[in-house]
Amino acid sequence: MHAVDLIRKTRDGEPLWAEEIQFLVAGAASGSLPQEQLAAWLMAVFQRGLTPGELSALTEAMRFSGETFDAREPGKRTVDKHSTGGVGDKTSLLVAPIVAAAGLLDPMISGRALGHTGGTLDKLESIPGFRTGLSLAEMRVVLEKTGACLVGQTAELVPADRTLYALRDRTATVESPYLICASIMSKKLAAGLDALVLDVKTGSGAFLRDREQARFLAKLMVETGERAGTRTAALLTDMSQPLGSSAGNWIEVAECCALFKGERPALSEDLRSLSLSLAGWMLFLGGAETSAKAGQARAEMLLESGAAWEKFRAIAAAQGGDLRALDKGMAHHAPGAQTVFKAQQSGFLTRMDTTAIGWAVQRLGAGRAAAGAAVDPHAGLTMHRKLGDAVSAGETICTLYAAHASLFSEPLTMLAGAITIAEEREKPPPLIGEVVTRETLTGSH
Amino acid sequence: MHAVDLIRKTRDGEPLWAEEIQFLVAGAASGSLPQEQLAAWLMAVFQRGLTPGELSALTEAMRFSGETFDAREPGKRTVDKHSTGGVGDKTSLLVAPIVAAAGLLDPMISGRALGHTGGTLDKLESIPGFRTGLSLAEMRVVLEKTGACLVGQTAELVPADRTLYALRDRTATVESPYLICASIMSKKLAAGLDALVLDVKTGSGAFLRDREQARFLAKLMVETGERAGTRTAALLTDMSQPLGSSAGNWIEVAECCALFKGERPALSEDLRSLSLSLAGWMLFLGGAETSAKAGQARAEMLLESGAAWEKFRAIAAAQGGDLRALDKGMAHHAPGAQTVFKAQQSGFLTRMDTTAIGWAVQRLGAGRAAAGAAVDPHAGLTMHRKLGDAVSAGETICTLYAAHASLFSEPLTMLAGAITIAEEREKPPPLIGEVVTRETLTGSH
Repeated sequence: MHAVDLIRKTRDGEPLWAEEIQFLVAGAASGSLPQEQLAAWLMAVFQRGLTPGELSALTEAMRFSGETFDAREPGKRTVDKHSTGGVGDKTSLLVAPIVAAAGLLDPMISGRALGHTGGTLDKLESIPGFRTGLSLAEMRVVLEKTGACLVGQTAELVPADRTLYALRDRTATVESPYLICASIMSKKLAAGLDALVLDVKTGSGAFLRDREQARFLAKLMVETGERAGTRTAALLTDMSQPLGSSAGNWIEVAECCALFKGERPALSEDLRSLSLSLAGWMLFLGGAETSAKAGQARAEMLLESGAAWEKFRAIAAAQGGDLRALDKGMAHHAPGAQTVFKAQQSGFLTRMDTTAIGWAVQRLGAGRAAAGAAVDPHAGLTMHRKLGDAVSAGETICTLYAAHASLFSEPLTMLAGAITIAEEREKPPPLIGEVVTRETLTGSH
Repeated sequence: MHAVDLIRKTRDGEPLWAEEIQFLVAGAASGSLPQEQLAAWLMAVFQRGLTPGELSALTEAMRFSGETFDAREPGKRTVDKHSTGGVGDKTSLLVAPIVAAAGLLDPMISGRALGHTGGTLDKLESIPGFRTGLSLAEMRVVLEKTGACLVGQTAELVPADRTLYALRDRTATVESPYLICASIMSKKLAAGLDALVLDVKTGSGAFLRDREQARFLAKLMVETGERAGTRTAALLTDMSQPLGSSAGNWIEVAECCALFKGERPALSEDLRSLSLSLAGWMLFLGGAETSAKAGQARAEMLLESGAAWEKFRAIAAAQGGDLRALDKGMAHHAPGAQTVFKAQQSGFLTRMDTTAIGWAVQRLGAGRAAAGAAVDPHAGLTMHRKLGDAVSAGETICTLYAAHASLFSEPLTMLAGAITIAEEREKPPPLIGEVVTRETLTGSH
């Protein structure tokens, strides 16, 4: 088999056999194929797309390119969720303890802050002592003890994705829905899931702002998951504004702690609602409930009863986290400096450039300018108003936190350009749009 | 400037500025750009194409990526021809001496046998002593002395093409008409031409068998040449059968010598006619005659008078060639073994798979299986019949020459599959189809 012949086929829109895709992926994982041949193939895929069969073969070849993780315990289903990324999206911290409290297993493997979006690992590491870099053996111990673990990608899982992702980054082939699908799904499926719920975000803070593109990606992922035997659903959700009231690291953990403790701040209502929906679908597809609606009710009960909070504390403790900080919540928040961003005029909050808000959060120190850089656990911002709210000139819209007051100037300018106040109120988009499942695929494919 | 941004633009069909294309080509020539980024860009070009402005910018950037050659002498025009490659195509050997005999300069830079096609350099090197590896300074000396030189590509000219061509070969991006055009035209224009005539072949022995594709490439090359200030025309010519009576190395030189000496073998009539047409266009576009027709008449006169023959001998002598071999012609032919291929049935020669015939010639030893391998100067085959001819069962259609009789078995099998004899005569395609010039471009663009 010669790589050049396979590139030529994809170039000309002729489907590859699974065996041919395995050859390319194995070459990527082992380094035996030259980068320029992989690059040409990736660009051909970008331009020509893949058939459902090719996409499944690519995903499976990547999934099995290294070790895999199998958390399955007798009588227990393994479930997980994945979000395409947004600003203030801390649902993972709420959802994993809820589904674990319901008796399912959630081996949740997350990422770090990337561009304008926050990273679950960075948020978790703002809990003093919390270790996210667990080995597969350590993951298994935490999972057996608590039913969930909240960890980073290990070197053993899906090595082909690391090679291909780095190459895509250098060759302008990141944005292909086919390659995004294979990257996400191979990593999720490598954890041996019975069910997976995808949160595909659209709107000003999402990577895929266009709703049609988001829907297309959602369908690819649901079809690929179901072809692999994993029950899969995708929720198309709104990212026209930061989710909940906070965007940063510790302040996001503290926002979750408040919800775990039964508080219902109005500004966190969207976060709470989305987390319960995601958990509800996970409980349904994981076989713990007979419908997503019943799953959602169960999830709400587990949150209200304090069972999810106890589970979150147990997971944190198992991963080395200091429970005193969690129990203190916002009282543990210790930014070096803080300031406020005020409304320039009276009216209604009609629009936010949420990507710009995400970059402002990154500049405050909560994200990173370069891979490997440190993040400030206490940097970030708190929103005091949501889309649709009335505001008066001079009123505080956000509170900003950073290590030094010198870091405020650029984010304040960015916020001024990112937040639109108009005379007429506009109705914000619904938080949860359609849900893509294998049943809706059948209807639309 | 970042390569990834330029790849993204081409990927999305957004034209690059000349400066941006120069950045990519300079990076290819110097090796400063990673191969995988160039590969992704080449595949994006393959899929998306280039605008006329981008194609000109690419060609010019490649043309000036190394040294250039300027043969211009006061009062003399520099002209050249280029063929897209075929079987038995020895027109270069006839055309360069004709145009030099007319007082023009022809710094002809040719290639070696590639795949199923022969190489002008390999043919010339079958003349004992003939050196094709001249430096730019040596080229100038031969040109000044004789008006033409017949040489190989030097390392100094168009280094970007070597990098890009090797990369295209590994990444299945060879066949893009845009990249073919830039590769051909950058090398031709680097020799500082006033006029260029392109022989774009179609039919069973051509790289571009499809007539529409050949026409498209011809238009791209004419437009690119004219945009660079070089008068350019392209003849679409037939390669449904080997050109002339021979395909090999020395036997092709000997066929030319016969024509130079005023012989008119019927089987060489197509070769003679095409050579005079090409030379006619070169004389016209080079300003030596007022029309292609007048140019052709002048070319015929120079061939008939023996002036072209004297010129060929002078060029050969200046490049170290042994004139005694040339004067002997076929009498110098010394193959190790020979055999014949006979007609299996009576009828008319209706079709030849000329690519397969080219591969048979290569297997006889006239071409090379791997780059850098030696060729047998006396291997090849002579055709005794052309398309449209009547043949009787058992009659000799070709004579095969090789170093050993053991080399005949495979080529004989290939010829049996490549040559079709049918009951009904079919009219062969015309040798010269349309001619693409800047005037016909205006009409069709």
